[in-house]
Amino acid sequence: MKVYGDTRSGNCYKTQLIMSLLDIEHEWVHINILKGDNLSDEFQAKNPNGKIPVLELDDGRFISESNAIINYLAAGSTYYPSDRFAHAEVLQWQFFEQYSHEPYIAVARFIAKYLGMPAERRDEFVSKQEGGYKALKVMEQHLNKHDYFVNNRLTTADMALFAYTHVADEGGFELNQYPAIQRWIKRIQSEPKFIPME
Amino acid sequence: MKVYGDTRSGNCYKTQLIMSLLDIEHEWVHINILKGDNLSDEFQAKNPNGKIPVLELDDGRFISESNAIINYLAAGSTYYPSDRFAHAEVLQWQFFEQYSHEPYIAVARFIAKYLGMPAERRDEFVSKQEGGYKALKVMEQHLNKHDYFVNNRLTTADMALFAYTHVADEGGFELNQYPAIQRWIKRIQSEPKFIPME
Repeated sequence: MKVYGDTRSGNCYKTQLIMSLLDIEHEWVHINILKGDNLSDEFQAKNPNGKIPVLELDDGRFISESNAIINYLAAGSTYYPSDRFAHAEVLQWQFFEQYSHEPYIAVARFIAKYLGMPAERRDEFVSKQEGGYKALKVMEQHLNKHDYFVNNRLTTADMALFAYTHVADEGGFELNQYPAIQRWIKRIQSEPKFIPME
Repeated sequence: MKVYGDTRSGNCYKTQLIMSLLDIEHEWVHINILKGDNLSDEFQAKNPNGKIPVLELDDGRFISESNAIINYLAAGSTYYPSDRFAHAEVLQWQFFEQYSHEPYIAVARFIAKYLGMPAERRDEFVSKQEGGYKALKVMEQHLNKHDYFVNNRLTTADMALFAYTHVADEGGFELNQYPAIQRWIKRIQSEPKFIPME
């Protein structure tokens, strides 16, 4: 298997994390989105939407979208429950992550950390704070009552949400007011075979 | 089963469509988001993220996020393939829909059709056009070679993408330049048990 991605991206880190937890051997192909590697014809043939990460299977087929990739890799393991309701809950939290969390927290982090907070995107950065804090509040409320998001054990729902939450401070988000999220972050970091984001 | 939603929302319509295709009896509870019904404590107890639709199972458990709901409802049917790769492809297109399609096409439609294009959101409406057309281009490219998004048959990936694509003109998007999308729309509309959006 090959993964096309950038290890500084939380969406790509999700893939690294599940591959470490499941001991999946793979080759990592670096795609530098700041340099526009993802806009090349060669990359667009792998994912016409031009986004990383992309997983290439040994038979040459491709899968894109980080949460689709980690669910594919986790299929058959306890990290991706097959019970009908638990399965729906995993997807629910992953769609929450992609719609109500990542567009605020990851984008704010990208503007601040990777673009160096250019003046012309300062307003956009500020506009991301409210939505990011709303997502953190929803997470805190859930983690106040549960150790993990689904089935009270580690699943790909946690991996999806962990990726950008544990570096939310880099997007300007203060996690001190969310003790349950902080405990959950430590819980995941203490997993055997956990690997940190670069 | 109960669905809490607003039939004018494409995300809610996805639920109506799969329930019609699978003859699933249910009660529909109208939630008027323009009046803020989704902000009540009563609704937030069902979905702390305050979004529609929400599915309530007969045992009182809740599922939110439209694509998680339609996959739950379609589980075990041909609309939600269990083959590992096809399953990943369905999720891939659904995450594409929620990240790269809905935030442009559905939001532009909401501003134009339901808010009546207020002056203070005109710039936002215009800014949604580029992303929306990019998503339509990705879809057209795929549908040029395939009748449906996955496995060459109707799945929940199509239902997710159909919801806002077939009314994209209400968000200012011109579908004339996308003949493959137009054929795919007609293909879905000619399904026995298809129901139109209100």
